[in-house]
Amino acid sequence: MTNTITIPTSIEWHHDHLLILNQQKLPKVTEYIQLRKIDDFYEAILSLKVRGAPAIGITAAYGLALSAQHYSVNKWEDFLQQFKNDKELLASSRPTAVNLFWALERLEKKIDQCISINEAKTLLLHEAVQIHTEDEETCRQIGEYGLEILTPGASVLTICNAGSIATAKYGTALAPFHLAQEKEQYYKVYACETRPVLQGARLTMWELQQSGVDVTLITDSMAAHTISKKEINAIIVGADRIASNGDTANKIGTLSLAIIANHYGIPFYVAAPSTTFDLAINSGGEIPIEERPIEEVIAIEGVNIAPENSEVFNPAFDVTPSSLITAIITEKGIIYPDFNQNIREILAG
Amino acid sequence: MTNTITIPTSIEWHHDHLLILNQQKLPKVTEYIQLRKIDDFYEAILSLKVRGAPAIGITAAYGLALSAQHYSVNKWEDFLQQFKNDKELLASSRPTAVNLFWALERLEKKIDQCISINEAKTLLLHEAVQIHTEDEETCRQIGEYGLEILTPGASVLTICNAGSIATAKYGTALAPFHLAQEKEQYYKVYACETRPVLQGARLTMWELQQSGVDVTLITDSMAAHTISKKEINAIIVGADRIASNGDTANKIGTLSLAIIANHYGIPFYVAAPSTTFDLAINSGGEIPIEERPIEEVIAIEGVNIAPENSEVFNPAFDVTPSSLITAIITEKGIIYPDFNQNIREILAG
Repeated sequence: MTNTITIPTSIEWHHDHLLILNQQKLPKVTEYIQLRKIDDFYEAILSLKVRGAPAIGITAAYGLALSAQHYSVNKWEDFLQQFKNDKELLASSRPTAVNLFWALERLEKKIDQCISINEAKTLLLHEAVQIHTEDEETCRQIGEYGLEILTPGASVLTICNAGSIATAKYGTALAPFHLAQEKEQYYKVYACETRPVLQGARLTMWELQQSGVDVTLITDSMAAHTISKKEINAIIVGADRIASNGDTANKIGTLSLAIIANHYGIPFYVAAPSTTFDLAINSGGEIPIEERPIEEVIAIEGVNIAPENSEVFNPAFDVTPSSLITAIITEKGIIYPDFNQNIREILAG
Repeated sequence: MTNTITIPTSIEWHHDHLLILNQQKLPKVTEYIQLRKIDDFYEAILSLKVRGAPAIGITAAYGLALSAQHYSVNKWEDFLQQFKNDKELLASSRPTAVNLFWALERLEKKIDQCISINEAKTLLLHEAVQIHTEDEETCRQIGEYGLEILTPGASVLTICNAGSIATAKYGTALAPFHLAQEKEQYYKVYACETRPVLQGARLTMWELQQSGVDVTLITDSMAAHTISKKEINAIIVGADRIASNGDTANKIGTLSLAIIANHYGIPFYVAAPSTTFDLAINSGGEIPIEERPIEEVIAIEGVNIAPENSEVFNPAFDVTPSSLITAIITEKGIIYPDFNQNIREILAG
């Protein structure tokens, strides 16, 4: 028996446009916007209307495929040149999420063998749809594995929104809780608000409430106190890029949580699809960390909370060393240390 | 040779009223308000217009003393009764800061031996002024000790506002940086914004800028990343109450910072006047932790950042176990472990 629950999604393909949930306006306004031109897609990713590494990858794939439908060229070289320009534009939108580059590469590979422009256009769209479809199945599988290691009834803390709306459906770190609702198993989730952009307060609270999950909001600064007072059993987070040794780039604040989990001896889990791994890099030190505009810190919803001329440091991500990670939950299985060996083994399997 | 610098203060006594800086309106508006009646004082403390344990103590002392000037009673018993009522009202304004109770008790003790109402009224005012004056000297001394252990040129991280405007002058955790400016020694300060009430973003940024201190704003979630990337040499924080074993209650988020400092092996200092110690309690477990309205988390400057009906946990303080504290800097000297022994020794000295 399953509950009738509503798991929100953020991406819908409509043949001549992509309909996305404008995540910048949540939770006050539930607005969907149509992306049609390559600049729409670029802007939507850059301005965080769509966010979450898998959702960025899916959106970029649709953007590149849809844009290619409109190239009015006759020569294959001209088609490829326009394709390359669009690909580079989208790739420049966010520097940290590896899924973005992975999705764009996958489309490029797909047309490597093409002999006609028409064939390429068709294959590109099919591939974008395929990436979208696969991601939903991937996330469901991550959720199933997550439920294997999170005891029903547990209290679990998370940060940012590695949720259904950050992916095709279900999410990564939040997938176990959505699936649990379907299975009538219940968890207590604590959501860190996730300054500066407040994805936890704005998105995770909204998304888990839609599914009926028991979720409590705290500020990021309350994590240690909450763990010590509320009997938190585990921390689970998403990832933007994972090096071959397991070092994980994720939303700023993740590293603090991993250190705190380690201090209290509770498990710290990363949940991410296999596409998040970047086996070309040996450690987290090689992951570029995006620094974003200082206005994100100085002002909230357009209201200044600090003197305007303030010096600000605003890194969007941090890197958690693999030594602080208990396990990485992927759609291919749960990866435990030794990560250097086991990541390659499980991803190959 | 010293610089001409402006160290902001928040409390001025004007014979028939107390002029306080409205810290709720900083940094946008620099507004001073007059407190005249006991309810003005109660409301100013409750609503955080005046905040910071020492400043709360000073304000409460003036409030109690000033209110007593207006008692139109002839009998000592009636005077005492009104005094007791006022004292209880003020004591109920904030439950965690021990300086509040200490200041009120000090006034009560002062009139224990009085033989006339007039004498009591005079002594109460004198005592309030004395508490105010002593606090400035105390803070300067804390600053001097702080400069003994913070190497000039060091990068130091802090949270909340244990600053000049939280005390009579200079502050506690921020006193070394103000004094350093006077002495032309320079430090680089990183200020955690300190959600939910944003005392770091609103107050510490403003206050240190007034003194010309090099200060950079980060969100609380950036502490671990900043420590690992910006070569932070130490963390220094204030305190609201310190148990006899050194366990320290301070602004929510302090505990996280102490755990992170411990992880990276950098010193974690608490700076507080001796009045912050509560030798009647053996450990931090006995310190009551104030939980404040959920609106502080759900809304910022009146703008909702989370769904309105959200479940929220909003503790205003946390307790850092003394095992994570490198030293406690007081006006009587720097206290190192073993705290159980050394706190009593140095406070007695």
